[in-house]
Amino acid sequence: LRTFDLVLIGYGNVARRLVALLDEQRDRLTREHDVRVRIVGIATRRHGCVYGPSAATRFSNSGQRLGTQTQRPSTLAFLRDSLERSASTARQRRLIVVETTTLDIERGQPATRHIETALAGGAHVVTANKGPVAFAYRRLARAAQRADRRFLFEGAVMDGVPIFNLVRETLPAVQILGFRGVVNSTTNFILTAMEQGQRFDDALAEMQARGIAEADASLDIDGWDAAAKTAALANVLLGANITPHDVIRGGIGSRTGPLAIQARAAGRRLKLVARAERKRGRLVARVGVEDLRGDDLLAGLEGQQNALILQTDLLEEIAIVQRSGSLTQTAYALLSDLLTVARER
Amino acid sequence: LRTFDLVLIGYGNVARRLVALLDEQRDRLTREHDVRVRIVGIATRRHGCVYGPSAATRFSNSGQRLGTQTQRPSTLAFLRDSLERSASTARQRRLIVVETTTLDIERGQPATRHIETALAGGAHVVTANKGPVAFAYRRLARAAQRADRRFLFEGAVMDGVPIFNLVRETLPAVQILGFRGVVNSTTNFILTAMEQGQRFDDALAEMQARGIAEADASLDIDGWDAAAKTAALANVLLGANITPHDVIRGGIGSRTGPLAIQARAAGRRLKLVARAERKRGRLVARVGVEDLRGDDLLAGLEGQQNALILQTDLLEEIAIVQRSGSLTQTAYALLSDLLTVARER
Repeated sequence: LRTFDLVLIGYGNVARRLVALLDEQRDRLTREHDVRVRIVGIATRRHGCVYGPSAATRFSNSGQRLGTQTQRPSTLAFLRDSLERSASTARQRRLIVVETTTLDIERGQPATRHIETALAGGAHVVTANKGPVAFAYRRLARAAQRADRRFLFEGAVMDGVPIFNLVRETLPAVQILGFRGVVNSTTNFILTAMEQGQRFDDALAEMQARGIAEADASLDIDGWDAAAKTAALANVLLGANITPHDVIRGGIGSRTGPLAIQARAAGRRLKLVARAERKRGRLVARVGVEDLRGDDLLAGLEGQQNALILQTDLLEEIAIVQRSGSLTQTAYALLSDLLTVARER
Repeated sequence: LRTFDLVLIGYGNVARRLVALLDEQRDRLTREHDVRVRIVGIATRRHGCVYGPSAATRFSNSGQRLGTQTQRPSTLAFLRDSLERSASTARQRRLIVVETTTLDIERGQPATRHIETALAGGAHVVTANKGPVAFAYRRLARAAQRADRRFLFEGAVMDGVPIFNLVRETLPAVQILGFRGVVNSTTNFILTAMEQGQRFDDALAEMQARGIAEADASLDIDGWDAAAKTAALANVLLGANITPHDVIRGGIGSRTGPLAIQARAAGRRLKLVARAERKRGRLVARVGVEDLRGDDLLAGLEGQQNALILQTDLLEEIAIVQRSGSLTQTAYALLSDLLTVARER
């Protein structure tokens, strides 16, 4: 039995669901993977930070504010302190930092700095944050290599549905030439709803009420979330070195509604499509509404469904489809990355 | 650089395409995977068997009949002899037997015996043959475990599109509850063609001319191929212990044509669907024509496309879609398994 210590940087819905999931899956992890996971540190945005097995357990179980028991250092200072206190665990390759702070679409900070700090301190890093991969994948991949630690981010795109792991683990001799997909659930839900006559604002409000849409709605509807995912996919799968600002970007709005209805009536469908490919050696990445034939795989995606079609050299096109999304799926992405770390010997 | 020696048991289209692919990918294998692959033995069905690096190279390059240069022992005797001659390579875990003999739907032989012999002789085994996985997965998995060698079979279902590797490598903490899919290209092509008014016999003849249909057409159209894949998937993904004979099985025929046209006119589609799930602890596996809603992912599969939808506990439904199939893809499945073997340290 091998024990891994986790420091959670960010303690929102995803991290809390991960803690619950680790608890639910405890037996399976021990039995099937010979792995035990302890949470030794938590940095929250508003309720302070806590280090130490018992404190973390108490906090994560009760959900209570840390209140006076905790200091309120900056998250970065807390992370540095945790790395120091867990230094011997880190040397044994048993320390994992889980980064789930809020996406910053301008620069991918402070998440990128957290990850660099964690790797330099000897921790593996797993994240569901697309910012770092979208803004600084190459730098972070190098930092991980230098530190001889893993940097994994399956949850950055399509939640727990394996994309990055799929390519890394199961397509070892395949070259990815390009991709296209529907990778933002909120806009696909709104487009589907508008086809059926629902108003843009109502559909968006429903997504926000369900906690699917980003708090800042423009991240979804102006295509920023999809652009960040496109940059992340292009950086990792196509060897690009771009940021979300390099992605040609369009979104949806209330004026898209009548067009969606019109397309549907003609047996076609409007979708917010993310795509990237190399054209004469130059990488072109784009997010925008496309008018698709009815028999296009992407045209068949209802509601919150996502899909990614990979263009490859040896296998031509492969598609992977996420038929439903949830917090559990994003938390699962983190868990699957934790197990990837744990499986190395 | 680590060198792996291959013994090819079966030397039909797939094995020959693998040999060419290994040659095409030689640089990439060395550069990116630090791996070199040599073919040290080939057992053909009609042209004898040959052991030894130079002979195998000469044979595979020229495609010539082995003629008098070779003995004509039974394939099993040749395999045993090869294992003995390569015993020291096997002890170093560098010997791989590639099994691609013809599918036997009655018992999965002699492929299963070849695999057992190879594992017992210290070789890893990779195969694109669905027979052994469909008939004897549990026994072979145990044999591999006892021998401490790999037994891999990605090509058995959906060619090179990762199914087994996907689940094994990227869904470590997920339980598969069931699946449904379209896994036979010939019948899907015929159904699509008949919807457009083509005659059953003509569509089948086209698939045979293109080398997609099995030589024995009944394997495809009576659902045997799909049943073998269903058994293979159920055995591996659902922990079942069934054979193709345990799969409730239906196929397609010329009478399916009018029904396919009728369904299409009503916005629906007929598909030969393979499915399995546990119902009150009992495994139920079935292949048969189903009348699907137009918005079903499987309904959208044109021509030779395949897809598999996995029902899981943590990720709900995930689908993987093969948009086109070819000999190269099946050969790639073998290559990807070879690299999985090579990646173990």
